[in-house]
Amino acid sequence: MVINESLVGVVAEAMKHAEIEGIYGARHGILGVLNEDFIDLRQEPDLELVAKTPASALGSCRHKPDEKDCEKVFEVFQKYNVKYWFYIGGNDTAETADIVNKIARERNYELRVFHIPKTIDNDLKITDHCPGYPSAARYVAMSFMGNDFDQMALPGVKIDVVMGRQAGWLTAAAALARRGPGTGPHLIYVPEQGVSLDKFVADVEEVYAKYGRCLVAASEGMVDAEGKLMVEAHVREYDAHGNPLVTGAALGDILMVELEKRSKIKDIRARTDTLGYAQRSFPGVASLVDQAEARLVGEEAVHYAMKGDIDGSVALHRVGEGADYRVETILVKLAEVAKETKNLPDEFIAPGGNDVTKAFLDYIRPLVGKLPRVASLTGVKVPKAEVED
Amino acid sequence: MVINESLVGVVAEAMKHAEIEGIYGARHGILGVLNEDFIDLRQEPDLELVAKTPASALGSCRHKPDEKDCEKVFEVFQKYNVKYWFYIGGNDTAETADIVNKIARERNYELRVFHIPKTIDNDLKITDHCPGYPSAARYVAMSFMGNDFDQMALPGVKIDVVMGRQAGWLTAAAALARRGPGTGPHLIYVPEQGVSLDKFVADVEEVYAKYGRCLVAASEGMVDAEGKLMVEAHVREYDAHGNPLVTGAALGDILMVELEKRSKIKDIRARTDTLGYAQRSFPGVASLVDQAEARLVGEEAVHYAMKGDIDGSVALHRVGEGADYRVETILVKLAEVAKETKNLPDEFIAPGGNDVTKAFLDYIRPLVGKLPRVASLTGVKVPKAEVED
Repeated sequence: MVINESLVGVVAEAMKHAEIEGIYGARHGILGVLNEDFIDLRQEPDLELVAKTPASALGSCRHKPDEKDCEKVFEVFQKYNVKYWFYIGGNDTAETADIVNKIARERNYELRVFHIPKTIDNDLKITDHCPGYPSAARYVAMSFMGNDFDQMALPGVKIDVVMGRQAGWLTAAAALARRGPGTGPHLIYVPEQGVSLDKFVADVEEVYAKYGRCLVAASEGMVDAEGKLMVEAHVREYDAHGNPLVTGAALGDILMVELEKRSKIKDIRARTDTLGYAQRSFPGVASLVDQAEARLVGEEAVHYAMKGDIDGSVALHRVGEGADYRVETILVKLAEVAKETKNLPDEFIAPGGNDVTKAFLDYIRPLVGKLPRVASLTGVKVPKAEVED
Repeated sequence: MVINESLVGVVAEAMKHAEIEGIYGARHGILGVLNEDFIDLRQEPDLELVAKTPASALGSCRHKPDEKDCEKVFEVFQKYNVKYWFYIGGNDTAETADIVNKIARERNYELRVFHIPKTIDNDLKITDHCPGYPSAARYVAMSFMGNDFDQMALPGVKIDVVMGRQAGWLTAAAALARRGPGTGPHLIYVPEQGVSLDKFVADVEEVYAKYGRCLVAASEGMVDAEGKLMVEAHVREYDAHGNPLVTGAALGDILMVELEKRSKIKDIRARTDTLGYAQRSFPGVASLVDQAEARLVGEEAVHYAMKGDIDGSVALHRVGEGADYRVETILVKLAEVAKETKNLPDEFIAPGGNDVTKAFLDYIRPLVGKLPRVASLTGVKVPKAEVED
C-alpha cells in the first residue's frame, strides 16, 4: 500500500539535487531495465497522489535475474549513464542490487546502489520492520475486527487465512483486532511453529467451550507437527497432471473439513475466508506511520547517496518504545539483507504455538496506529416476566 | 456495516417519547424473542459508538420462524406488554413481522409492527435501495480498485468472487472501481444473466488481447447459459459422502481452472480471490450516505409508530438525482416487502451480460460516495539510448 511513498520519496529528494540530470523509472522492476523501458519521472504531474495509491506505480515483476541478466543490467546502466540506482523490494531485490553492484565495481564504473526495503511479509534482516508491513497488518487487523463482530452476531467457527508463506508476521497482526477478553481472533497459527491437526481441533474445541465461538487466524504457510505445509500434507485432490488442486483458499477448506470430521462440537457452523490481495492493495486504510516511514526510507536513500555512501540497504532502527516510538535510518550492507529472511522470533510466539505474546503486541502497536473505534452493547438483562394467569 | 445505525436510530428516537416505558433489545433476532432474552437498551452507555460498529450488536440468527414460533412471539410480546415492534432485516424479516402482526390483529392486541430494511444484497422490493448495501458496495469497489492497481503492477487474469447468490447488485458495484478506459474490473458477471464457459473464456481473451490483463468481477451466484449455478454445474470433486467439495472460493477456482484449460492465452497468470465476510463487516469504510440513511429509517420507523401508523416497512424513496441526490421515507405494506426479492433490472445490465450500464452507475454513485483519491503515473517514455560503439 505504501510502495509508491518510497518511490516518490526518492524522486522528490533527487529533484532537489542539480547534479542529478535525469530521474528514470524502470517499468516492471528489473524487466524495465533489461528492456530499456524507462519513463521520465521528472515529468510526472501528480506524484503526491501516486504516493497515496496502492501497488507499485512503476509496475512489478516475478522475474529473478540470473548472472547474465545482471551483466545486462550493468550494461544498460552504462549505456544510459546511470550513476545512482534505487531499487525497492525484498531480499531478492537486495541480492540483485548486490550482484550488479559488484559487477560495476569490477569494471571500475562508479555506480551507487541503494536498496529500499518494502515487503508486506516483514521478513527482511536487520531492519526493525519493513515498510509495507504495517499497512498490510492494519488491513488484516481491521478485517479480523470486522469478522469478530460478525461472529459475535452469528456464532460459529471461522478460519481466516492470512498471507505469508514463510513468516508469520502478518498473521500475528490479527491479534490487534482484540478489544478485550474473549474477543477474537482466539487462535493464531504461524508457520514458525507446527501444530498437528488433532491439536488444532482440540484448541478450537477449548475456545468454543469457553466462548461459544472461535475465530482463527491461520497463516497460509501453516505447518503440521512434522513441519510439513498443511496444504501439502493434506491435499487430497490432484489434477490430470498430478498437480495438487490448491489455491489460496485451500488451507481454509482443509482445516474446515478436518474440523467438521474430527470435532465433537455438535452442529458446528464452520466457515473460512482467505483474505486475498486486499491485504496488500486495499486503498485508503494504510497506516500513517507506515506511509511516513516508506517516504523516509526513499528520501534517506538519496541522502546517503548524496553524502558519499556508495551502496547499502536503508534499514529502520527503533529508538523509542510505546508512546515514544520513533525510528532512525541506518545504512547496512546489501549482502546482509540479501541473505536469508527473518522469521517471527520465539519470544513473539506464545507457548503452545497458538497465539502471540505481549512482546509482539508492544512491537507492532506503534506501527499500525489506532484502529477504528468500535463498541459492543453492555447488555443489561431484562428480568424474565412472570407467567400470566 | 450500518445495521447498528438503524438500531440506535430507533432507540434514540424512542427515548424521546415518555409513553414508551421500556426499550428492549432481543438477542440474536427472533431467537431472543422466543427465549425471552432481552436487554435494556435504555441503559446502554455508548450507543453512538455502537452505531458505528459493524455487524448486529444485538446479534443475528439464521432461524426462520414457523407459524408456531410466530404464535410464541406474539405470546411473549403480550407477556412483556410490548406494544411496538421494530424488526431490522430483509424480506424474511418482513414476512415474520407480517405474520405476527396478523396474529396480534386477530387477538385484538394492539401491536404496532415496523420492518426496518437492512440487507447488503439490496434485494428488497419497493425501496430505492437497502441500507447496508451502499457500504458493502463501497467495500467491494475499494477492493476492486486495489486489485486493479495490483494487476496493473503485475498483469494477468484475476477473478474476484463477490457476495450475492440471487441478485447481482453487490457484484455490479465493482464497476465503481474504474477510473477511466482500460481500468478494471473489465468484466462483470451477475446471476441475472447466464453465460457459458466458452463465452466467459472468449470475453477474457478479448479483454486480455486489448489490455494485456483482465480483472473479472463474478457473483458467487453466477450461472451458466442454461441458468444453472456455475458451482453446481461444474463441481468435479465430491467427498466420501457424495457431497460436493464446495466452499465460498469454489467459483473462482472453477473459473480459473476452466480458463487455464480452454484459453489460448499463453502462460496465463490466473488468480482468484473470494472477497469474504469483509464485504459486510469491514470496519471504518462505511458509506456516509448509508450511515445517515440507516439511522434515518430507524428514526422514521418510530415517527410512523408515534403518529398513528400501525404497521409497515420503512422504504427509501429517491427524490433527487446525481448531485441533488436526496431520499424521503415512505411506509409500505409489510406484505409487499415480504414477498419475493428484487433483481438487477435489465436496464442495469449491459448487452452481452458481461458488464453494467451507465444507468446503474448513475443509480449507485450517490449511495457509495467518493472513493479514495488515487493516481497512476502518466509514464512519459525515455527515448532509447543509441548503441555505444
